[in-house]
Amino acid sequence: MPDEMSRLLIRGRGDGGGGSRHLEASAPGVPLIGILGTGDFSRSLATRLVASGYHVVVGSRTPKRSAATFPEEAEVTSQLEAANQADLVFVAVFPEHHSTLVELKPALAGKTLVDVSNGLQINRDRVSNAEQLADLFPESCVVKGFNTISAWTLQAGPRDGSRQVFLCSDSQKAKSAVTQLCHRMGFVPVDVGLLSSSLEIENLPLHLFPSWRIPVLCTLSLFLFFYLYNFLRDVVQPYVTAGKRSFYKMPIETVNVTLPSVALVMLALVYLPGLCAAVLQLWRGTKYRRFPGWLDRWLAGRKQFGLCSFLCAALHAVYSLCLPMRKSARFKLMNAAFKQVKAGQEDSWVDEDVWRMELYLSAGIMALGLLAFLAVASLPSVANTVNWREFSFIQSSIGYCALSMATVHTLLFGWNRAFDSAQYRWHLPPTFLLVLILPLAVLLGRLALLAPCAAHQLQKIRRGWEKNRHIRFTLPDDDCHNGVEEASHV
Amino acid sequence: MPDEMSRLLIRGRGDGGGGSRHLEASAPGVPLIGILGTGDFSRSLATRLVASGYHVVVGSRTPKRSAATFPEEAEVTSQLEAANQADLVFVAVFPEHHSTLVELKPALAGKTLVDVSNGLQINRDRVSNAEQLADLFPESCVVKGFNTISAWTLQAGPRDGSRQVFLCSDSQKAKSAVTQLCHRMGFVPVDVGLLSSSLEIENLPLHLFPSWRIPVLCTLSLFLFFYLYNFLRDVVQPYVTAGKRSFYKMPIETVNVTLPSVALVMLALVYLPGLCAAVLQLWRGTKYRRFPGWLDRWLAGRKQFGLCSFLCAALHAVYSLCLPMRKSARFKLMNAAFKQVKAGQEDSWVDEDVWRMELYLSAGIMALGLLAFLAVASLPSVANTVNWREFSFIQSSIGYCALSMATVHTLLFGWNRAFDSAQYRWHLPPTFLLVLILPLAVLLGRLALLAPCAAHQLQKIRRGWEKNRHIRFTLPDDDCHNGVEEASHV
Amino acid sequence: MPDEMSRLLIRGRGDGGGGSRHLEASAPGVPLIGILGTGDFSRSLATRLVASGYHVVVGSRTPKRSAATFPEEAEVTSQLEAANQADLVFVAVFPEHHSTLVELKPALAGKTLVDVSNGLQINRDRVSNAEQLADLFPESCVVKGFNTISAWTLQAGPRDGSRQVFLCSDSQKAKSAVTQLCHRMGFVPVDVGLLSSSLEIENLPLHLFPSWRIPVLCTLSLFLFFYLYNFLRDVVQPYVTAGKRSFYKMPIETVNVTLPSVALVMLALVYLPGLCAAVLQLWRGTKYRRFPGWLDRWLAGRKQFGLCSFLCAALHAVYSLCLPMRKSARFKLMNAAFKQVKAGQEDSWVDEDVWRMELYLSAGIMALGLLAFLAVASLPSVANTVNWREFSFIQSSIGYCALSMATVHTLLFGWNRAFDSAQYRWHLPPTFLLVLILPLAVLLGRLALLAPCAAHQLQKIRRGWEKNRHIRFTLPDDDCHNGVEEASHV
Repeated sequence: MPDEMSRLLIRGRGDGGGGSRHLEASAPGVPLIGILGTGDFSRSLATRLVASGYHVVVGSRTPKRSAATFPEEAEVTSQLEAANQADLVFVAVFPEHHSTLVELKPALAGKTLVDVSNGLQINRDRVSNAEQLADLFPESCVVKGFNTISAWTLQAGPRDGSRQVFLCSDSQKAKSAVTQLCHRMGFVPVDVGLLSSSLEIENLPLHLFPSWRIPVLCTLSLFLFFYLYNFLRDVVQPYVTAGKRSFYKMPIETVNVTLPSVALVMLALVYLPGLCAAVLQLWRGTKYRRFPGWLDRWLAGRKQFGLCSFLCAALHAVYSLCLPMRKSARFKLMNAAFKQVKAGQEDSWVDEDVWRMELYLSAGIMALGLLAFLAVASLPSVANTVNWREFSFIQSSIGYCALSMATVHTLLFGWNRAFDSAQYRWHLPPTFLLVLILPLAVLLGRLALLAPCAAHQLQKIRRGWEKNRHIRFTLPDDDCHNGVEEASHV
Repeated sequence: MPDEMSRLLIRGRGDGGGGSRHLEASAPGVPLIGILGTGDFSRSLATRLVASGYHVVVGSRTPKRSAATFPEEAEVTSQLEAANQADLVFVAVFPEHHSTLVELKPALAGKTLVDVSNGLQINRDRVSNAEQLADLFPESCVVKGFNTISAWTLQAGPRDGSRQVFLCSDSQKAKSAVTQLCHRMGFVPVDVGLLSSSLEIENLPLHLFPSWRIPVLCTLSLFLFFYLYNFLRDVVQPYVTAGKRSFYKMPIETVNVTLPSVALVMLALVYLPGLCAAVLQLWRGTKYRRFPGWLDRWLAGRKQFGLCSFLCAALHAVYSLCLPMRKSARFKLMNAAFKQVKAGQEDSWVDEDVWRMELYLSAGIMALGLLAFLAVASLPSVANTVNWREFSFIQSSIGYCALSMATVHTLLFGWNRAFDSAQYRWHLPPTFLLVLILPLAVLLGRLALLAPCAAHQLQKIRRGWEKNRHIRFTLPDDDCHNGVEEASHV
Repeated sequence: MPDEMSRLLIRGRGDGGGGSRHLEASAPGVPLIGILGTGDFSRSLATRLVASGYHVVVGSRTPKRSAATFPEEAEVTSQLEAANQADLVFVAVFPEHHSTLVELKPALAGKTLVDVSNGLQINRDRVSNAEQLADLFPESCVVKGFNTISAWTLQAGPRDGSRQVFLCSDSQKAKSAVTQLCHRMGFVPVDVGLLSSSLEIENLPLHLFPSWRIPVLCTLSLFLFFYLYNFLRDVVQPYVTAGKRSFYKMPIETVNVTLPSVALVMLALVYLPGLCAAVLQLWRGTKYRRFPGWLDRWLAGRKQFGLCSFLCAALHAVYSLCLPMRKSARFKLMNAAFKQVKAGQEDSWVDEDVWRMELYLSAGIMALGLLAFLAVASLPSVANTVNWREFSFIQSSIGYCALSMATVHTLLFGWNRAFDSAQYRWHLPPTFLLVLILPLAVLLGRLALLAPCAAHQLQKIRRGWEKNRHIRFTLPDDDCHNGVEEASHV
C-alpha cells in the first residue's frame, strides 16, 4: 500500500490546520525538533517528522526563499532561532560547512545534535564527521545516525529499503531520545555504542554488500576454472584430435556442466568451516579460545556461500530442463532415428543407461528441493519465526541431507565412468571426479566426528568442559547453564 | 509456531488465578482498559488485551448473558460502570448506534476513546465515523485505529495478516497512549496524523490492493492485445490462406508467444518513468519542482510493474519448458523423422538454427535469473536488510542488466527474421518487432543520459543545483548535505 | 550485513574507553545489569548488553579466572557483589544449582531476576525452573525469558534465527523492565502472561516445528498410499500379467503420478475445515459456540497443509519437466519413429491426444502459478503488508481458484478414461479417480453454501445473529460492530 500511505501523509500534511497543531505544540511531552540545512534530506526529514506528529523548526540562511519547499506545518526560520527553540537538532548541512555553524554554539549548548552526514569515500583512519562535530560543539551531545536512510525512504515512509537506523553517541540520554524518535518515525534503531563507532557508521553506505564479496568472488573463480576445464575437455579436445566442431556447446552445454560443479563445491565449502571448528575444538580441548580470524569470517559467511550454491544449482536445473527443447537436441535425435532405421534395429533400449539417468535425475531433484527449502528458510522473515533449535536443525541436519543428496546425484551421474579410460581425454579426468573430492571429504569428516569417542568428547567441550582445567568439574554450578546448548550452533 | 502461541495464550487465560491478577490491577502503571460492545471484535480484543497483561472491563447492556463468551479474567459489567472505571475505552459498537452511548458522556469526559469501526462502502465525502464520535463526545480524546485488524488476528496473535495498526488523533497524548498499547499487544503502530485522516483509515480495508490496480490492468490489456495479434498471425492467417488447422496452438503456443511480449514491455515500463523524470529535471534545470501526478504515481508503482513483468517471464519459462513434453511436439518430431528417412537425408543439422537457439536460450535464462534476483530483493524482509545504496544498486544497475539481457534474448530470437518478407503475413510484422520498440527506446534513452554533458548536468541538479538560481552556489553550506545522494533514487 | 554488524560490535567493545563509560554508568536512567554464572550464555549475554549500552556486572565464583573471557567493559566480580550492585539480575546458572544461590537472598530481595534456563526434556507436569526459582526467592520478582534465544544469536546480534523473546512474570513492573531491555537489545518481546506460563516457555525449544507435525505426517502417509497404489497398477500389474519389466519407472514416473495426487488431496484438505466450520455454524445457528478441538487445530494448520500441497505440486512440475530429458523417453521416441517408418505411416497426428495434453498442461501451469502466488503471500513479511481484507481475499478467493484449476487439470488429464474399462487393471480404478473425490466434494460443498438461502443465513450468523436468541435483534447496538466482518475469516 505504498501509495495509499503516501496519500495519507500528503492529506495529513495538507489538512492539518495550523490551529489545532499549534495548540498541540505547546503541550508538554511533544518535543520540538530542529533541522539545520534546507537540502533534499532536510525536506524529506521535515515531511516525515511532521507526519509522525512532531512540531518541526527548520533553520535556513534564507528562510523566505526556502519556506516554499517545506511542508506547511514546518516552521522555517533563521538558523539561530531554530537552534534556540528546538531541544533536538538535526544537522543536515554538508560536513565541510559544519564550521559555519560555530556562531550557534551558545544556542546549541546542552542540546542533542544528530549528525546525518555521509562521507564521499571510504575513510579508514581520519576522524569521522560526527567526531569533528563533537569537537566543534563540546557542550552539546552529538548522536550519529540516519545517514544510512535515503531521502526517498524518509519521504515514502519506511517501506522500501532498510528500516534500520544505526545510532551511536557518548551520551546515553541523547541516544535514547533519538531512539524514541526513531521508533515513532517507524524506523528500527540499532544501538552500536559510543561515538567512536561513528566512523564505521559513516562508512556503511559506501560498502556494497561487504559480506557477499568473498562468496561471490569464490563462485566466479570456481566458475571460470571449471568452465575452462570443461571447454578444454568437451570442445577443444574433440576439435583438435578428431576435427569435430562442437563450438555450439559453449553457451549452454558447457555452462550446464560447469554450474553443478560450482554448486557442489560451494555447498561443501558451507560445511567445511564447521568441521574445521569442531576439529580445532577437539584438538585444543576447549571452546573458550577464539578461532583464527579467517575461520570466524568463514563461519559468518556460510549463509552467503549456501545461497551462491543454491543459485548455481537452480540455474543448472533450468539449463538442464532446456536441453531437450533445443534445435541441436532435435537434430541429434532425428539423425539417431535415421541411423536406427538404416540399421534396421527395432529396439534401441539400453537398460543401464535408462536406470542411470532415472536415478541421478531423481537424486538431483531431491537435492534441489532440499536446497530450495534451505534458501526459503534463510529469508529473514522466515528465519525470525523459528526458534534457535529449529534453525540449527534446518541449517545443519537438512543441510547435510542436501549435501549428501547432491553428492549421490554426482556419483550416480558418474556411474562407472571413472573407471573408463576413454573418459580421460588428454589424461584429464572427467569433471565430476574433481568435483567430488571436497564433498566426499566433508561427509567423511562429519562421519568421523559422529564416531562415539569424538562425539562424546565434542559434546563435553561444547557444554563447557576444558582439557586443561579439570577443576571446573568440581564447581559445576559456575558453568554453562543452557542444558540444550550442546545441539551445537557451529 | 502459531498454535504453540495460541496454546500459551489459552493456558495463560485459563490459569491466571483471579487472586494474583486482581492484586496486579491495583498496582500503579497498569492501565484499566474498557471495551464497549460485546460482539465478535470485542471478544477477540478482550482476549488479546488480557493475554498482553492488561486488566479489562467490558461494558455490556446485558452483562450476565454476555459474560460467558469473554475470557474469565475480563470483568463484564454494565456500560456505565465500564466507562466509569476505565481510563482508555474501546468503542466496539456499530457506528449507527454510537448515539446510544450519549448517556455515558459524563463518565467518558477527559478519557481516550478508540473508535475501531469500519465503513460498509467507500466513503468519499461524508464525515468519518471517528469524527462523528468526536462530535458526540467533545470532552473525550478520540483516536481512530485497529479497524484494519481482523478479529481473527487479534485472537490468534499478530502472526498472520497485517501487524500494522494505523492510528490518528487530534490529541497527541491519547495517541501516544494507544501507541504504547499497540506495541505491547505486538502490533506495529503507524501514526498517520490528525483525526482528519480518519476517513482514509476507515476506507483502507475497503480497497483491495490499490497500488496493484494499474499495473495489473496494464498487464491484462497488453496480454489481450498481444494474444489477439498472435492469434491472428499464427492461427487465423494459416487457416484462412492455407486451410491449415492449428487451433491446438491456442492454449499453449500462442500464450507462450504472448507472455514474453508482455514481460518485456512491462519491464521497459519500469524504467521509462525514471527516464522521464531525469529528462524533466534536465529540461526544468531543477529537482525542486514537483513531478506531474501521473509521473509520481508511475514512479511509486515501479515495483508492482516489475513484479508483473517477472510473473509473465516466469510463466513464459514454464510454458517454454513444457513445449517438448507435449504430444504435438512428439508427433511433429516423428513426422519429421519419417520425412528425413524417406528423403534419405543422413544429417539434418542446420548450424545457424542451432546457434540461434543456443544463444537466445542462454540470454533468456540469464534475464530470468536477474529478474528472479530482483523479485527476491523486493521481498519486504530482504529489502529491509540492505542499506539504501545497496537497494538502489540492485533496483537500478541489476534492473538495467535484466532489461538489456531480455532485449538481447528477443533480438537473438528474432535473428534475421525481421528482414524476411515471408514473416510479414497479411503485412503484420512479427510480434518481436513490436515488442522491441519500447525497451530499445528506454535503453537508448538511458545511454543518452550517460553521455558526459547530460550526466554531469544531471548530477549537478541532483546535488541541489538550480538553473535559475545561481546564487545558490555562493551559499553552498545551505545545501543538500548527503554527499552520496547523487547515486540517484529516481 | 552480519559481519559488518559484528565488526561494529567488536570495535565498539574494544574502543569503549573505560573512562567515559564509567561516567555513564553513574548517570541516572542507565540500569546496571547483573549476570550470575560465567558459562557460554553469560558471555554472549554480557557482550550483547555491553554493545547495547548497558553497564554489566558479572558475578562469578572465581572472578579472576573468568574475567579474561568476558568483554573488557563488563566488570567481573564475586556473586555477592554483583547481586548487591545490580538492579536487574540474569540468573544464567544450571537450574540444578539454583539452590547454591540462596546465600544471595538478602542481596536480591526486591530485585528482578530473569531466569534464562531450559529444560533437558519435555516437562509436562513438573514445576518449571522459573517457578522453583520464584519459590527460592519469594522477595524477588522472577521473569522467565530469553531461553529461546541461543548464545550465538546473542553474540551475532539478532539477525539469524528468531528475534522473539517470550516473557512471563507475575510482576507487571519487572516484566515491563525486561521488555524495555529486550527492545533495546534488538529483540521482539512477546508477553505470554503470568509465571504459570513459564513451563510452556521452557518447553518451547524442545519442540521441533510442532505445528508442522500433522501436515507433514499427512503428506507422508498420502504419499506412501498413492505410491504403493501406483506401483501396483503401473509396475506390478504389467509385470505379472504381461511380463513387462518396467521397474525403471519407480524413481521418476511413479513418483510423478503420486506427487500431484498428494498435492490435490492436501489442497482439498486446506478448504475442507472451513466448510465444516460453516456447516457447523449453520446447523448450530450461532457462531459463539466453540468448535471441537480437532476442527480448531485443523483450521489453525491450514497454512501448513497448503504449503505441503504447494511443495508436492512444485516437485510434480519439476519431475514432469524432466520427463522428455530422460534416456527412456528418447529410446521410446526412437522406437516409435522406427515403427512409424516401418508402417509407412506418413502422419501419426492424433488430434484428440494433442488437445487433451495442451489443455491439461495449461490448466496445470495456471494452478501452479496460483499456488506459487499463495505461497509467496504466506511469507511472514509479505503477509504483514496486506490488510486483513486483502489477506482473506488472497487465501480464500485465490485459494478456491487454485483448487478449481487443479481439479480441472486433473479432470482434463483424465479426459474420458474413467469410462474406459481397459484402465481398470485388476479392477483398480485409475489414480485420478480416487484423487478427485475430495476436491470435487469440497467444491460442490462450497457451491451449496453459495446458494442464496444458505449464504444469507451464514452471513446473518457471522454478523452475530443467533438462532436461539431472537431477543438480540431488538438490541442491535450491543452487537458485533465490524460491518465488513462478514467477509468471513473461516
